[in-house]
Amino acid sequence: METTINVLEKVKFKKPILIEGLPGIGNVGRIAAGYLVNELKMKKFAELYSPHFLPLVILHDDAVSTLLKNEFYYYKGPRDIIILTGDTQSISPEGHYDVCEKILQFAQKTGIGEIITLGGFAEGRIIEEPRVIGSVNDRKLLKKYEKYDIDFGKEHSIGTIVGASGLLLGLGRMYNIDGLCLMGETIGMPLLTDPKASDKVLQVLSKILNLRIDLSKLEKTIKEMEERIKKTERVHKKILQEMPRAKEDIKYIG
Amino acid sequence: METTINVLEKVKFKKPILIEGLPGIGNVGRIAAGYLVNELKMKKFAELYSPHFLPLVILHDDAVSTLLKNEFYYYKGPRDIIILTGDTQSISPEGHYDVCEKILQFAQKTGIGEIITLGGFAEGRIIEEPRVIGSVNDRKLLKKYEKYDIDFGKEHSIGTIVGASGLLLGLGRMYNIDGLCLMGETIGMPLLTDPKASDKVLQVLSKILNLRIDLSKLEKTIKEMEERIKKTERVHKKILQEMPRAKEDIKYIG
Amino acid sequence: METTINVLEKVKFKKPILIEGLPGIGNVGRIAAGYLVNELKMKKFAELYSPHFLPLVILHDDAVSTLLKNEFYYYKGPRDIIILTGDTQSISPEGHYDVCEKILQFAQKTGIGEIITLGGFAEGRIIEEPRVIGSVNDRKLLKKYEKYDIDFGKEHSIGTIVGASGLLLGLGRMYNIDGLCLMGETIGMPLLTDPKASDKVLQVLSKILNLRIDLSKLEKTIKEMEERIKKTERVHKKILQEMPRAKEDIKYIG
Amino acid sequence: METTINVLEKVKFKKPILIEGLPGIGNVGRIAAGYLVNELKMKKFAELYSPHFLPLVILHDDAVSTLLKNEFYYYKGPRDIIILTGDTQSISPEGHYDVCEKILQFAQKTGIGEIITLGGFAEGRIIEEPRVIGSVNDRKLLKKYEKYDIDFGKEHSIGTIVGASGLLLGLGRMYNIDGLCLMGETIGMPLLTDPKASDKVLQVLSKILNLRIDLSKLEKTIKEMEERIKKTERVHKKILQEMPRAKEDIKYIG
Repeated sequence: METTINVLEKVKFKKPILIEGLPGIGNVGRIAAGYLVNELKMKKFAELYSPHFLPLVILHDDAVSTLLKNEFYYYKGPRDIIILTGDTQSISPEGHYDVCEKILQFAQKTGIGEIITLGGFAEGRIIEEPRVIGSVNDRKLLKKYEKYDIDFGKEHSIGTIVGASGLLLGLGRMYNIDGLCLMGETIGMPLLTDPKASDKVLQVLSKILNLRIDLSKLEKTIKEMEERIKKTERVHKKILQEMPRAKEDIKYIG
Repeated sequence: METTINVLEKVKFKKPILIEGLPGIGNVGRIAAGYLVNELKMKKFAELYSPHFLPLVILHDDAVSTLLKNEFYYYKGPRDIIILTGDTQSISPEGHYDVCEKILQFAQKTGIGEIITLGGFAEGRIIEEPRVIGSVNDRKLLKKYEKYDIDFGKEHSIGTIVGASGLLLGLGRMYNIDGLCLMGETIGMPLLTDPKASDKVLQVLSKILNLRIDLSKLEKTIKEMEERIKKTERVHKKILQEMPRAKEDIKYIG
Repeated sequence: METTINVLEKVKFKKPILIEGLPGIGNVGRIAAGYLVNELKMKKFAELYSPHFLPLVILHDDAVSTLLKNEFYYYKGPRDIIILTGDTQSISPEGHYDVCEKILQFAQKTGIGEIITLGGFAEGRIIEEPRVIGSVNDRKLLKKYEKYDIDFGKEHSIGTIVGASGLLLGLGRMYNIDGLCLMGETIGMPLLTDPKASDKVLQVLSKILNLRIDLSKLEKTIKEMEERIKKTERVHKKILQEMPRAKEDIKYIG
Repeated sequence: METTINVLEKVKFKKPILIEGLPGIGNVGRIAAGYLVNELKMKKFAELYSPHFLPLVILHDDAVSTLLKNEFYYYKGPRDIIILTGDTQSISPEGHYDVCEKILQFAQKTGIGEIITLGGFAEGRIIEEPRVIGSVNDRKLLKKYEKYDIDFGKEHSIGTIVGASGLLLGLGRMYNIDGLCLMGETIGMPLLTDPKASDKVLQVLSKILNLRIDLSKLEKTIKEMEERIKKTERVHKKILQEMPRAKEDIKYIG
């Protein structure tokens, strides 16, 4: 079995922007992506399955089980937007490269204009006023984004960006796709979501996208998302018990 | 070497139902599947070998060594039945996806009608009256199975179904094959078989299959199976000593 | 890179018998195979390299470094003999299947008649009079070997045969090649060779091969082999320090 | 995704010599290679990316993120020189074989004459006067290099050469490429660079290459390289926290 993207609806895009928010530190990116999907009433048009995900299905409360997957949603507006979110990331290093390359090849078919990846940055301490730290995959992009409230300085201890948020930028460069990564500062406790960091990331993102997004519902929406989030956390905890080898991976993707 | 299914006998099926009972929690599924094979005097018609199984042979009491394998048995009746059981499951995450996909492709060639996977659910405590908890891979199936003594509610802590019992459902959906998973509640101690949970699963299964299965011999049959089961447990213990990396996997598949 | 067998000399065989003695428990098989190579003045005709071996070269005392490899030697006599020995076995489960399948495919090209694999069986205690425990890959072979001093009974605790000695039998059956495994009882301490067990295995083997092998030099030859064996042990110890993940594998192959 | 070498500039070579200095024990080889690139004002002409590297990007101080990579530099002189250096080595055993084979295939296209690999040898104690210990991949090469200050004797405890420095020699032999490995003795503490050992290796190397290299700037250059080195060390530390499974690999490649 190979990493596969099933297209549910054929959509024509005008140079869409791809926004990635997959599970990761503080679930900052995932919450932000999920909130955008809700607020913009975005429609799912493709799903990605991979043998590099954990070998299990999620049992939902309606007694239906589904494979772990990543999902692509779209929004047609002045600027076409595609959001990539989902249950999980790859659990093997090689798998990360494989999945990210499949995503980029799919994005290219949509005529992708640029990529913005969302994540958290674990500071290891409580953050009162989280900054949004940025990185680009080409120096020329710094000018483009300098007007936003993004910290491109080096007064932080980030040395790497692990997983999809990083690889989509790095591999994206090889596909000649411009990329920006936005990371909200967070404490970085395992299995703890951080809406405050997501809020900050969404503030910056909505300005870049020139979208009015009502962030007042974020807390409420997160509460609604909690059931799913808790389910996933339970999944993680269960996996920690059953698949010790996966322990590190969950720590790493979560 | 690739995962390979060797066909021992060419059999023509009428929309058979595939029942999976491989080693897993409490060996609930494996015991139930093995009992059905015995009671229905089913005949083996195919064997599956995989490089994703442990790299060893089992030395049987007759001094003959054989590769670890999964086996397909059949029963021709009002409803054709195929049972998938065997020594082991994949020991790597990617291997699980690979083996399950090979099983589904093989099942499709038989003209498969649906899949029922059997397993145990580890409650972590002694269960006096084990429930049979169910999950389907399409909501429409709930109606079909609502008349049986299956708990489709959410008053349990199951978040995931790991391994073949889960993946055959999840991947099965992508092959457009309907699937039901039946899980007998059990304590979930490593290397401990639970006939009581298997009995409950078999009660439900025999009603679904509309088969009269004499369950009175279950305890006795399990005693007869014990030698083989003990052999496998010894295998597991031996592996735990010799292949520490496999430790987690055995915990996970057993 | 794939597992590759480089043929150094093209040799025509008459239904040769393949004898495997690779590193393993007590190095019983490896010592026995090495002794035969010396005593029969066998000639190397092929080498096997694999990405499933540790990623390192051995630095020999003459300052030359060589890849880890397995080696094929031959002896032309009343009965053609091929011996497979070498530095290591695969370090991944999947690799074991791959390497063994490549060996079998190569053996088939030589017109292989049968396989005898040699190994040790770890009893976990000092063995005064080691038995040679046997296993075959087809019940019909028991008759053929019953006249030799091989214990085919079940009064031992062997449940599995791990690695090449086992897989060549199990996979061999799928290639329709008859196989016998001879295991000398040994204490089974890590990194400890056991000449006494090798001696017993060689006694049985020389009768099967109908060869007069002077075993009086075994102790002496082992002393000569010790430098190489110590080098390998040093390799193992060094690897244990440098590559913790390999730890379990070495324990397992050694 | 496969291990890929992107050629940035097409260069014609006359039997170039390939010098490898990737991260490893004491970073001895990497520092030596980096110093040569600086001193000879070498130009980058190719980059290697691999799914066998850690799945992350490095965030540089200018806010630009880049994939982990290896780099090829060249120098056109009386003798053409190619230097291979970079951020990392493969994190999986199989990956090492794959990456090294890709490097050799690329080297062959340049008409490679020979390979010299640079590394450190961990003595586990402070070394006052580090020797340069050598190994070749063909005995005939010993004569060629005997006039240099290289210790080809066996009065050291080296049993293996792990990673690219070893595999390029071992695999190189199969490509019929002569190879020499130079190892500077060092204490071998994790994440500690050793300029003294690099200095010794460079002294020998400059004589072999018949190049006048001003080593007086080594200490200074290393200070300049420190920022990058520290960044990588931070990367390593961060990975140790986030990706426990990589722990062993970093210990192993670093």
